[in-house]
Amino acid sequence: MATLIRGGTVVTAETSYRADVLCDQGVIKEIAPRIEAPADARIVDAGGQLVMPGGIDPHTHMELPFMGTTASEDFYSGTAAGFAGGTTMIIDFVIPDPKEPLLEAYRKWRGWAEKAAGDYSFHVAVTWWDESVHRDMGVLTKEHGVNSFKHFMAYKGAIMAEDEVLVNSFTRARELGAICTVHAENGELVFHLQQQLLKAGITGPEGHPLSRPPEVEGEAANRAIRIAQVLGVPLYIVHNSCRESLEAITRARNEGQRVFGEVLAGHLVVDDSVYRHPDWNVAAAHVMSPPFRPKEHQEALWRGLQSGNLQTTATDHCCFCAPQKAMGRTDFTKIPNGTGGVEDRMAILWHYGVGTGRLTPNEFVRVTSTNAAQIFNIYPRKGSVSVGADADLVVWDPKATRTISAKTHHQKVDYNIFEGLTVQGVPTHTISQGNVVWADGKLDAKRGAGRYIPRPTFAPVFEAVRRQTELKAPRPVPRVAAE
Amino acid sequence: MATLIRGGTVVTAETSYRADVLCDQGVIKEIAPRIEAPADARIVDAGGQLVMPGGIDPHTHMELPFMGTTASEDFYSGTAAGFAGGTTMIIDFVIPDPKEPLLEAYRKWRGWAEKAAGDYSFHVAVTWWDESVHRDMGVLTKEHGVNSFKHFMAYKGAIMAEDEVLVNSFTRARELGAICTVHAENGELVFHLQQQLLKAGITGPEGHPLSRPPEVEGEAANRAIRIAQVLGVPLYIVHNSCRESLEAITRARNEGQRVFGEVLAGHLVVDDSVYRHPDWNVAAAHVMSPPFRPKEHQEALWRGLQSGNLQTTATDHCCFCAPQKAMGRTDFTKIPNGTGGVEDRMAILWHYGVGTGRLTPNEFVRVTSTNAAQIFNIYPRKGSVSVGADADLVVWDPKATRTISAKTHHQKVDYNIFEGLTVQGVPTHTISQGNVVWADGKLDAKRGAGRYIPRPTFAPVFEAVRRQTELKAPRPVPRVAAE
Amino acid sequence: MATLIRGGTVVTAETSYRADVLCDQGVIKEIAPRIEAPADARIVDAGGQLVMPGGIDPHTHMELPFMGTTASEDFYSGTAAGFAGGTTMIIDFVIPDPKEPLLEAYRKWRGWAEKAAGDYSFHVAVTWWDESVHRDMGVLTKEHGVNSFKHFMAYKGAIMAEDEVLVNSFTRARELGAICTVHAENGELVFHLQQQLLKAGITGPEGHPLSRPPEVEGEAANRAIRIAQVLGVPLYIVHNSCRESLEAITRARNEGQRVFGEVLAGHLVVDDSVYRHPDWNVAAAHVMSPPFRPKEHQEALWRGLQSGNLQTTATDHCCFCAPQKAMGRTDFTKIPNGTGGVEDRMAILWHYGVGTGRLTPNEFVRVTSTNAAQIFNIYPRKGSVSVGADADLVVWDPKATRTISAKTHHQKVDYNIFEGLTVQGVPTHTISQGNVVWADGKLDAKRGAGRYIPRPTFAPVFEAVRRQTELKAPRPVPRVAAE
Amino acid sequence: MATLIRGGTVVTAETSYRADVLCDQGVIKEIAPRIEAPADARIVDAGGQLVMPGGIDPHTHMELPFMGTTASEDFYSGTAAGFAGGTTMIIDFVIPDPKEPLLEAYRKWRGWAEKAAGDYSFHVAVTWWDESVHRDMGVLTKEHGVNSFKHFMAYKGAIMAEDEVLVNSFTRARELGAICTVHAENGELVFHLQQQLLKAGITGPEGHPLSRPPEVEGEAANRAIRIAQVLGVPLYIVHNSCRESLEAITRARNEGQRVFGEVLAGHLVVDDSVYRHPDWNVAAAHVMSPPFRPKEHQEALWRGLQSGNLQTTATDHCCFCAPQKAMGRTDFTKIPNGTGGVEDRMAILWHYGVGTGRLTPNEFVRVTSTNAAQIFNIYPRKGSVSVGADADLVVWDPKATRTISAKTHHQKVDYNIFEGLTVQGVPTHTISQGNVVWADGKLDAKRGAGRYIPRPTFAPVFEAVRRQTELKAPRPVPRVAAE
Repeated sequence: MATLIRGGTVVTAETSYRADVLCDQGVIKEIAPRIEAPADARIVDAGGQLVMPGGIDPHTHMELPFMGTTASEDFYSGTAAGFAGGTTMIIDFVIPDPKEPLLEAYRKWRGWAEKAAGDYSFHVAVTWWDESVHRDMGVLTKEHGVNSFKHFMAYKGAIMAEDEVLVNSFTRARELGAICTVHAENGELVFHLQQQLLKAGITGPEGHPLSRPPEVEGEAANRAIRIAQVLGVPLYIVHNSCRESLEAITRARNEGQRVFGEVLAGHLVVDDSVYRHPDWNVAAAHVMSPPFRPKEHQEALWRGLQSGNLQTTATDHCCFCAPQKAMGRTDFTKIPNGTGGVEDRMAILWHYGVGTGRLTPNEFVRVTSTNAAQIFNIYPRKGSVSVGADADLVVWDPKATRTISAKTHHQKVDYNIFEGLTVQGVPTHTISQGNVVWADGKLDAKRGAGRYIPRPTFAPVFEAVRRQTELKAPRPVPRVAAE
Repeated sequence: MATLIRGGTVVTAETSYRADVLCDQGVIKEIAPRIEAPADARIVDAGGQLVMPGGIDPHTHMELPFMGTTASEDFYSGTAAGFAGGTTMIIDFVIPDPKEPLLEAYRKWRGWAEKAAGDYSFHVAVTWWDESVHRDMGVLTKEHGVNSFKHFMAYKGAIMAEDEVLVNSFTRARELGAICTVHAENGELVFHLQQQLLKAGITGPEGHPLSRPPEVEGEAANRAIRIAQVLGVPLYIVHNSCRESLEAITRARNEGQRVFGEVLAGHLVVDDSVYRHPDWNVAAAHVMSPPFRPKEHQEALWRGLQSGNLQTTATDHCCFCAPQKAMGRTDFTKIPNGTGGVEDRMAILWHYGVGTGRLTPNEFVRVTSTNAAQIFNIYPRKGSVSVGADADLVVWDPKATRTISAKTHHQKVDYNIFEGLTVQGVPTHTISQGNVVWADGKLDAKRGAGRYIPRPTFAPVFEAVRRQTELKAPRPVPRVAAE
Repeated sequence: MATLIRGGTVVTAETSYRADVLCDQGVIKEIAPRIEAPADARIVDAGGQLVMPGGIDPHTHMELPFMGTTASEDFYSGTAAGFAGGTTMIIDFVIPDPKEPLLEAYRKWRGWAEKAAGDYSFHVAVTWWDESVHRDMGVLTKEHGVNSFKHFMAYKGAIMAEDEVLVNSFTRARELGAICTVHAENGELVFHLQQQLLKAGITGPEGHPLSRPPEVEGEAANRAIRIAQVLGVPLYIVHNSCRESLEAITRARNEGQRVFGEVLAGHLVVDDSVYRHPDWNVAAAHVMSPPFRPKEHQEALWRGLQSGNLQTTATDHCCFCAPQKAMGRTDFTKIPNGTGGVEDRMAILWHYGVGTGRLTPNEFVRVTSTNAAQIFNIYPRKGSVSVGADADLVVWDPKATRTISAKTHHQKVDYNIFEGLTVQGVPTHTISQGNVVWADGKLDAKRGAGRYIPRPTFAPVFEAVRRQTELKAPRPVPRVAAE
Repeated sequence: MATLIRGGTVVTAETSYRADVLCDQGVIKEIAPRIEAPADARIVDAGGQLVMPGGIDPHTHMELPFMGTTASEDFYSGTAAGFAGGTTMIIDFVIPDPKEPLLEAYRKWRGWAEKAAGDYSFHVAVTWWDESVHRDMGVLTKEHGVNSFKHFMAYKGAIMAEDEVLVNSFTRARELGAICTVHAENGELVFHLQQQLLKAGITGPEGHPLSRPPEVEGEAANRAIRIAQVLGVPLYIVHNSCRESLEAITRARNEGQRVFGEVLAGHLVVDDSVYRHPDWNVAAAHVMSPPFRPKEHQEALWRGLQSGNLQTTATDHCCFCAPQKAMGRTDFTKIPNGTGGVEDRMAILWHYGVGTGRLTPNEFVRVTSTNAAQIFNIYPRKGSVSVGADADLVVWDPKATRTISAKTHHQKVDYNIFEGLTVQGVPTHTISQGNVVWADGKLDAKRGAGRYIPRPTFAPVFEAVRRQTELKAPRPVPRVAAE
């Protein structure tokens, strides 16, 4: 059945214009000022509203096994909650245990994700190194549509990748045309600070941000950037939360390096006072890494989006309910790290971004959808409103308001870090693969309807980086035979 | 007659894909993998080639009366030369004399431009201030499609705008939704240095760069940026030639300010050694402001394009032949300022940008066409390859090479600052308004075929800036009646 | 009569050590671990205390005629108040009216200053330009010991120096070996914003900071720096109040330029919330330029002192009592600009600087005394504890506390911007010219005891700047005779 | 026997003045305009010359066992060569092998150093970690006058300290009041690049700089800085050779962090073209780490000295003769790293620093002597010209010139990286412990006359850092008992 979106203003990363949009068989068939509705078409009235590419959340962790428990949100509920907020695709993470073969882990996650209602893809984490990892990276890129590998610079004693792993993996990624991504925190310092704080009797959630100060993130961001620079690979740094890592990215970009930065909706509006909340449960509900930061960092992050030094917004959606968080009741280092947000990201970005004049509507589209699609090389299939593209769209009412609450959200978690915020800008309809999956407050998400989206390697920036490197290739100095 | 571009790879600011492009009645009618040629269509074989938006040169001065003479290139010859290089639109400047009514000057330039072969538009300079200027700015924006005003911070005693003019004009532009642009050089310092140098016996062209060091440009760029910041207006700085002004722009953008920067093809590849050339004519041929700079500035400017801190490329095409340059034989301050380049910009950017891996092909499109169209608010009519857009296109052979020379160029000037450079990347066909105006080395430019392109005010960033300002609007403090 | 300071720890800009200090005939006679007291010597017991160079306040305006009234603090009361706070020398300003001969103004101020109790010197302002100013600058440096000239970039319509004046005066100062200083605010923008605010009905003191935002200061600081760079002169920027001007200074210093920056005690601890105080008198009492700033600027300024990018601390001591401030009751632009502080600067710097670990005691000495003496070329006569130096000293009790208040201060003004702050670190004794002028809460200041301190030109940095410039001197290009 | 230096101009870090200087029993006895010579005093005629603190080279490696050989310069010859150049003290390094007890290594080096002619002290390297290292650090600081510990972030598989060692050692140093120093290069990247280059057939010295690009140094510098920031310790980075590490230092200092930077005389004037010299021996003679850099880095380093972001100059004097260098004939990674310079540093700094106007003479004293003495807490015993200070002085003729050459130098090495440079500024006399050890081209250095100089812990900046940290000490949040 076709779907005709009528009467709206199409807003893309580039421009805005009045047009109807006709979707059929999962893709956009036509965009024109006035389209006659096919016989059986469902009509979506977008009068006075904006028609934009559906959101892409490039950083989620559905049903992740982590720190001794499993994230409460699964691929079905999580992608459905995304629909309710205008997000139509997620990129999740395959995270092998140390010594676990990458392909095995990959298959495990693919299995879990079969229940997804919306489209999805996977970054694969490199948490250890041997020849098999080298080989599996090749298989994943060539046979499974993986074009990005993730590295955790924190979580010492678990999944932390030391410099040696980074160097090996980045070198391999370069051969394969895959983009490297990092979680940037100096795990050695975090570990040290955790021990010091516990020794000093700081066992509550207030210890969490103290064990992961911004300097720790800035250090790791800069280190990853320099390694990428030396090895000649593009780099994507996830969840930048502070001025320090933004400055490292900005410095590198100003020098022409191909570095990309992601920011979470939460870091843009929640500050670190939450960790000193008198209610332990409230404080613990905010434990995630990197932690929320003092307010001045928020303004810096917004400027990062405005200036283009940060390109994408995500959520690191990774839900743990109160009983799970309680595992760290007497030791903050044992509180499962993670917060939700896949449902609210678009609204937070619109309200605090467009509503305050920090972003234009076109820039909103870029940072919520288009840039992620381009960086991870699935544009224009995703992230665009163009004929032939996947019909993943959101119809946005810029005038409507709603109040965010765990009581009404669709996320499978008992807390919402945006609780009580009233935002202007609401998705009235979400279209996934041409189907209306969210309309006027009702979800119509189908279990298993989501598809795995393979992502080709060698995005355009690779060619550029390759050329630059070739031109710099070292040559030996001819010398007369030694005396 | 329709034109079908067959077999090429469409390259836009966003993406690249195989497609045929059908043009008819001046616009793009269809873009599809395989288009049947209409009966009478002219077929352009783009096999193995790239189909890109025609170049937009946002900074030219055709037939400009300046420093006691008139630029040798006129609107016809200049737009035709542009065609030969893949450029299909220019934005020129109306420059009133002090006290000359803006509308009078505007009409004069419109008259001169009627002979143009390609499309054009006009920035209007504000070189003085009174109530009539205030009024005429309104008339120009509302009735004549002018959305940008230019200010010269140099040329003391002639067209220099002091801070008072800048403040008045920027304030007015804000009301009108027009973008402010500046030529950033501290005219007071330039004047002082010129006098000092002449006194010290430096009368040759080597005095030119000495009288306009980079600091002078960096100062003015920063001043204009700060004034724009305080008054709440977007700003566009023309012909950034040095690290100093780039850094001022970068700083402002990193703080979220809406500042745009242009760089000339010449400043990217020509260095200041030219002014010490033993042949006076060669040295004088390079006299333009800002002058060519030491080599380290070139690398900085390229990084500015890569990082997105500079958005557009132009030429400041303003041609004076040797006999004109000779007016300054004994006093470098009397050498008419200006060099050519409208024909060569695209090739320089491709060869030194894409060919070296500094830019991707998509980024090339952005900095030669799309960004200018977006900033000056004529996108997607210009700067895009999309159905409904003006059929201004270039078919680009990335393998072909040519050697630039004044002997073979189509520009009406006796010198070429890129003389002897062999570039890879050649426009095989240029299409203007759907017509093939350049094919395989032959021009088919029609005198008067060019149209004036009106540009609407209030581009999207204005709305954003307005919102930000509203939220900061000052409020008086209520106080009890005086003591 | 000799004075022996016994049992203290001498703290200089360089080091700290236990020593007695013997003063006689106005100078330091001996410094040694244990000095026998001369027969008639006054003994100052400095046990457990620090013996430091007396403070130098390089920026005061005693009895200044300004904005239609005269500052309430005169040279006698002001230098005496300085004694009470540990400050033993001030550098005040001669400010000619436009068209007033510099020498006449200089003589007027010298006359007013004869009543001073402590030593003093004068910067001379260049507020206009003609040949006589050029000549008088020479006379002042050669015959009157003036080595610094001040320029106001604000106060349009009154004493504002436009770029042309700056360029002329800086050029002349270079010939004379005198340092240029500027009050950095873009007067054109301030004027424009004042008019806008009044038009918008903002007439109270809250309009004052709105008319002088940090951008306005950052712009002017950068402009002065660039002009100084181009002309090859050292530069000193007074009362930097914000991140923006600090960044301009930092940028220049990092590039090797000889730029110095001063910060006022008030800007380090008072924020802009004072201007929205419901009591008009309180708000008006804080009106000075540049205004107090949002809190984040304070932290930046402290970092400027820590990093050495700012070198001196001052007060811009310029007192107006409530009835004088009331002149601007209905128009904030008419409130006389100025606040006090000469008595409190040292304590503020110690408490908030040393007490918080931002500064070491040696750095405290540098920023309150030594650096000013070196920059204005009166070191080691002033600013040092060394044999032969003027016996201007302060004995500092780092443990004692006091609470600052207008009720108890010695300044001739009815308000204190530090009212109510309790500071740790108190001057128990101040010695001026070897005489104890403040001891345990009692002043013993003698009217007229202060001396004019001539300051020689060509401080060491001038030689360095001169060499650099000589090496860059332009040379003409030899060319064959024209064709 | 006393020594009277007569008729010179004393130049200190602070000021310059005419004075005679009387030395007796190893210390300065008197400084006065005119001193009567004691009966038996040796008179040094310093007419027309400058009398300055003897140079301190805070970074040398005499007779270092390294890479399978031992540095050719021993403590006697090396300190004597220092005398010939005006340097009167060195700080060398104790470098334990991994697992070697620190105290054992320390005793070994003390033994070797007994032959020294001039005063010396030792940094001790922490190359591994266990409880004994923790303990020995305490013993060294408390009983042996060690106040600085060194960490090599490069030399993987040998003495490289990974983050875990850095964190442990910095934490311990904080307890002890000792300053941490680092050799900043990312050893993992260096190792990787070395392997890649060898694999690519680059086996000559040209591979050396390619394996250690500036990014590798910038990364490590920033990492060490961030670790020091988090742990609250001052940091000193040795031999900064490039813009990248200077920028890391500058950033940190601008944020108020206590970071110090050293630069080698060689990096200021020698560029990386030496590694492509056709003569293998010449190229190999320049192999040291970090390597010499492209010219633009030199200008940056000079600016670092001018701005005060770099504080000290050294040489990393570590000599290997041609037969030793030949160990790496077929594999550049086996060429012993090191070059000489202890004799030439002062002259290089004077000629290229003061001679070009980059530095004033006072700044020259700061960066060659005083700053090192203050940072390593032996001021004013060393680094000053003051009564009671060690009589380590140099009499400097700013007019005289000499040409540097291995043929005439006093260093025990067959190559001089400054070969052929003619410098203006020559030490006519060097005084060590009050004895004339170098006069008019003749050395009079006594084997074993040098003393070990103990250095006390807790230099003033430690107190400041400690206060700042105390004020930020974390507190637990009181919470009601769990639900």
